Amino acid sequence: MATINYPENPSPVADAEAIRKACQGWGTDEKAIISIFGHRNATQKKLIRRAYEELYNEDLVKRLESELSGHFEKAVYRWILDPEDRDAVMLHAAIKETPIPDYRVIIEYSCIYSPEEFLAVKRAYQARYKRSVEEDLAEHSAGDLRKLLVALVGIYRYAGKEINARVANTEADNLHSAICNKEFNHEEIVRIISTRSIPQLIATLNRYKDDYGSSITKHLRDDANAAKEYLVALRTTIRCINDPQKYYEKVIRYAINESGTDEESLTRVIVTRAEKDLKDIKELYYKRNSVTLDHALSKHTSGDYKAFLLALLGNDN
Amino acid sequence: MATINYPENPSPVADAEAIRKACQGWGTDEKAIISIFGHRNATQKKLIRRAYEELYNEDLVKRLESELSGHFEKAVYRWILDPEDRDAVMLHAAIKETPIPDYRVIIEYSCIYSPEEFLAVKRAYQARYKRSVEEDLAEHSAGDLRKLLVALVGIYRYAGKEINARVANTEADNLHSAICNKEFNHEEIVRIISTRSIPQLIATLNRYKDDYGSSITKHLRDDANAAKEYLVALRTTIRCINDPQKYYEKVIRYAINESGTDEESLTRVIVTRAEKDLKDIKELYYKRNSVTLDHALSKHTSGDYKAFLLALLGNDN
Repeated sequence: MATINYPENPSPVADAEAIRKACQGWGTDEKAIISIFGHRNATQKKLIRRAYEELYNEDLVKRLESELSGHFEKAVYRWILDPEDRDAVMLHAAIKETPIPDYRVIIEYSCIYSPEEFLAVKRAYQARYKRSVEEDLAEHSAGDLRKLLVALVGIYRYAGKEINARVANTEADNLHSAICNKEFNHEEIVRIISTRSIPQLIATLNRYKDDYGSSITKHLRDDANAAKEYLVALRTTIRCINDPQKYYEKVIRYAINESGTDEESLTRVIVTRAEKDLKDIKELYYKRNSVTLDHALSKHTSGDYKAFLLALLGNDN
Repeated sequence: MATINYPENPSPVADAEAIRKACQGWGTDEKAIISIFGHRNATQKKLIRRAYEELYNEDLVKRLESELSGHFEKAVYRWILDPEDRDAVMLHAAIKETPIPDYRVIIEYSCIYSPEEFLAVKRAYQARYKRSVEEDLAEHSAGDLRKLLVALVGIYRYAGKEINARVANTEADNLHSAICNKEFNHEEIVRIISTRSIPQLIATLNRYKDDYGSSITKHLRDDANAAKEYLVALRTTIRCINDPQKYYEKVIRYAINESGTDEESLTRVIVTRAEKDLKDIKELYYKRNSVTLDHALSKHTSGDYKAFLLALLGNDN
């Protein structure tokens, strides 16, 4: 379930006018911006952008970029774009990270999003950057990590629910034999993980656990023969396939920690999930950490950024 | 340009009734079937199938399968399905070929069809077979050939016209250095060929020719280090990218030869291109062979199959 609260039919024109007012004069009224955008869904945000453009002949996204700053600005920017466009922006940034791409973003979109949602992101990426996700990723990665990631983004997965038990059986064995031989980068592993449908893969992973007494991620432990980042990416992929919400909870848990907050990841999970299943992720977070996400987040973030995230979490009273 | 001739607004009901009549009683009136289906475009065929189903509560495709036989039946079957559905059927058959998939079909669809057309084929494939093209292909191929083909079908290519001359330059050099080292299965070759947009690849291939004095296909000659079928598939890919019509002319030329006709390939090219560019392919054929395609085809095929293909070629008087 989603976390954000929004009125049913807010006036896009009134919203655009209020935002204009918040941006005028000395300083910006961040609270007004949060009180509006913290409570609008994707369609409503689109209508506000359109109304603003028509009223003031100015791009609202650009205006806010120049008015706001820091993590708050980044979060607002990502929140007010259309979802597929926002994801294209984040995917592009993830691919261009050095020395290696931020594979988590790539894996999330390719394994957690539905094939149609991911296709929409690819289309938005092409419209924005005039290149394909695939060519940029292939150019900016190397080795086994490239093999895995390019295969993951390239596949238009089957989205049906059918499961073939025989295939699950055979492929659980194939995975196990590659792992036993410490061939963590074996072609078969990449083939199975990247091409099979999600329900089929879950059946295969369950079968693996039943037959070999442990989850496959436990068997994919660091090994001298495989590049560390490849192995971590492979485990991440399997987690995203197996249980997306549990995976997101973990990303948030690691992002909020005593040694410093990873605002990039925190923002990403909150803006991408607030309209989808952030409520469930919050519940998992509470179960795992015995403290509410709102509370943890309040402790580790501050100012407008904190106020905005709390609004997206459905808690800004 | 297309080859088939068709009336502007034929009555789907009258067509369905005529086909019903042709199928009734002793024997089938193949001429009547050819006179109708040889002169209908994709939309008209769809309307006939629908009218037939409504009138007689029977699937026309199945009925014709049982009425007709041999190469003629196969050609009619492929012609009357919706294009994306027909392509899904042919792709499936190509993937399941033993000992290795018929890579020509796979390469044609992935490199000659537009990204949107190819996506429609993938969707039709999933609807029909409840699996993805990618998983079936990955399961039924191996080695370097698999790497190339899975990469080709997996990519949602950028369809824009922009070309980056710097990239063309660098990647022509990268291709050349892999080829000089006889690393025909080098990751870079597969990466470049499978991910770049078609206009970008053409620029790169032109650059290669300018800088190294010969087309890349001439340099990709049989070598002990690379599997023969992989090399042939790679050359086929480059030909499909470079000049689809020239490629199709060659397929037809090889399909019609003194030692026996390859009806499978002949049918494929004619049914998939008759509504697109078969006229241009015919002209190329004449230029290359000094004999018209209609004439060559008349000499090497016979009966209803011949009459049907000639109708699709726009010549059945």
